[in-house]
Amino acid sequence: MKDYFDFAASTPVSLQVLEAMKTWETDNFANASSAHQAGQASHQAIQKAREIIADKIGALPSEIIFTSGASEANNFAIKGLAFKHLDKKGHIITSSIEHKCILNTCAFLESIGFDVTYLAPDSYGRISAASLNEALRSDTILISIHHVNNELGTIQPIAEFGAIAFENGVPFHTDAAQSFCKCAIDVDDMDIDMLSLSGHKIYGPKGIGALYLRNARDSELVPLIHGGGQEGGLRGGTSPTPLIVGLAAAAECYPTEPSPDEQRFFNAIKEFEYTRNGGVDVVPTTWSVTFKSDDDVKSFTHNNPWLISQGSACNALSNVASHVLIALGMTEEQARRTYRISLPPYQISWK
Amino acid sequence: MKDYFDFAASTPVSLQVLEAMKTWETDNFANASSAHQAGQASHQAIQKAREIIADKIGALPSEIIFTSGASEANNFAIKGLAFKHLDKKGHIITSSIEHKCILNTCAFLESIGFDVTYLAPDSYGRISAASLNEALRSDTILISIHHVNNELGTIQPIAEFGAIAFENGVPFHTDAAQSFCKCAIDVDDMDIDMLSLSGHKIYGPKGIGALYLRNARDSELVPLIHGGGQEGGLRGGTSPTPLIVGLAAAAECYPTEPSPDEQRFFNAIKEFEYTRNGGVDVVPTTWSVTFKSDDDVKSFTHNNPWLISQGSACNALSNVASHVLIALGMTEEQARRTYRISLPPYQISWK
Ligand SMILES: Cc1ncc(COP(=O)(O)O)c(C=O)c1O
Ligand SMILES: Cc1ncc(COP(=O)(O)O)c(C=O)c1O
Repeated sequence: MKDYFDFAASTPVSLQVLEAMKTWETDNFANASSAHQAGQASHQAIQKAREIIADKIGALPSEIIFTSGASEANNFAIKGLAFKHLDKKGHIITSSIEHKCILNTCAFLESIGFDVTYLAPDSYGRISAASLNEALRSDTILISIHHVNNELGTIQPIAEFGAIAFENGVPFHTDAAQSFCKCAIDVDDMDIDMLSLSGHKIYGPKGIGALYLRNARDSELVPLIHGGGQEGGLRGGTSPTPLIVGLAAAAECYPTEPSPDEQRFFNAIKEFEYTRNGGVDVVPTTWSVTFKSDDDVKSFTHNNPWLISQGSACNALSNVASHVLIALGMTEEQARRTYRISLPPYQISWK
Repeated sequence: MKDYFDFAASTPVSLQVLEAMKTWETDNFANASSAHQAGQASHQAIQKAREIIADKIGALPSEIIFTSGASEANNFAIKGLAFKHLDKKGHIITSSIEHKCILNTCAFLESIGFDVTYLAPDSYGRISAASLNEALRSDTILISIHHVNNELGTIQPIAEFGAIAFENGVPFHTDAAQSFCKCAIDVDDMDIDMLSLSGHKIYGPKGIGALYLRNARDSELVPLIHGGGQEGGLRGGTSPTPLIVGLAAAAECYPTEPSPDEQRFFNAIKEFEYTRNGGVDVVPTTWSVTFKSDDDVKSFTHNNPWLISQGSACNALSNVASHVLIALGMTEEQARRTYRISLPPYQISWK
């Protein structure tokens, strides 16, 4: 799609990914749980994909659990952990600028008796390790803070969060939907216990993602989707071999260079007066831009009739200003002058 | 795949389905929640798919909630209902020959305080309306009994179950993974309140399915996957437009005639002594066959080196005899002599 600059909302499926999927859609379409040869070949393809994904984040293949996307992975991580504590309940720490799938999961858990602390970001969108430290309680059962913010591009100091979590013996989950493949991740160096990722943010298919779960085999996470023993008993449902192979192919083929297309955006934006939100630690492909005036907005969108977002896709259809922008301290009016332009993503180096 | 007779485990993706999906993978890959034109086109494609699925079962489009498959739909229906009753808990009626995703969901609910009655089938695999009537209690919150059994092909009298449920004001859910498109279904005539279906049993993609939910908009079902407001707030996660469009295309292109391939099976089987399990009300494409002797088994599998299953795919990798066959009263030894041969499915008429 020409004029599409909404890659944080979703990416196309790359041709290599489509090619990799096709074999498993038509040539060998067997159920990966079937004992026969075709089923076992499908199973092998899934195991290979598991290795590729694990390798990207310094994990073991057995610690990767395929899900239908990052939303499911986030729900699974948080509810799976919380449901272990259904008797006594407990306290969860997250942030006020998580993706809605995390905020709504936490709201549900609050409604059944859990306590949740929502850490506030500074005006750049950064969550501080100090605020995490302060929020910890003796009954804290989980810390869940995202890696890269989907609206701002802000990179959170997750290694610091991980270290605090580790010191205090609290599991640390991070939503890496916007950072997987983009930023370097090592689950051991960063003390990450659970990590969510998604296919359609990295030129892979929609409807597939994964949860990294440390020591998955010994974990007592309660399955979100009970089933017939798939994914080590942790996630039921016939394994979608094409989607899983596609996710791995996307991770393998992830571009390491920026797209030449982004130059169009850089040329366009320099004509305007704006503030870029998100602070200094931001990914280079997500631009949250607050224009100085309504006239700037009008003229930018008129001259550049691009497919871009106000806030994220999930908030797009409501008329409410994005909860992320409001959390930065913006007025509704400033939020209205704010657009997210997201360029074709590529692998950046970790700072 | 030549020699594949395991269509109840999974089907290939038909070429029409692949074709229908492709547009949404590469030409318009926008997030269906995005407010811009491309996002809205994707949203429209999903709405069209919703109409097609709804139409197949006499439902309203607004009553179809897309999920990652029948396993998720089953988990969502049962847990979503149960979680409304988390305070006082309650009683659920199902059968002992459900798919593992239902049995394991129920086992989980038992572990947190719900009561579950598992109706036993007769020796043909049929659940009786009388046994359902007997099992009802004043605190029964849900009845969940499948439509067509995946191992036997037995068609359950779900209209009778629905009538009993309706009379008693108890919601009725049915797992229609093995009957959707195959058997005529009308959710009103059959008093069905919730129904699960799956793509990869009908020549559609793996990783997609749906839950029919009566009056979904007014329902208080607790989401299994909380998210950003997708699917009317009932199921989070970026809508996988290609998979959803593929599911609808599969339902539209579902064959109405048997495949000529099945003749090979009919020719082969008539040389042997066997019992066909599942009674008289069975779908014509699922054959559960208990061979008379080990020699018959050996010779059948030797002469016909087909891709078939013992029990279902989900049970395939364990060495335990299928819970369905044991529920019929078979010995382990008889279960070992039993194979499921499943022929290419097609639309049959309802009796
Ligand atoms: C930060 C973040 N988390 C979670 C999600 C949800 O991912 P998915 O669409 O795979 O469910 C998204 C994108 O939609 C996201 O940007
Ligand atoms: C009766 C029945 N229910 C549920 C399922 C699970 O469906 P899915 O693979 O779409 O999760 C299957 C098949 O695997 C099935 O045969």
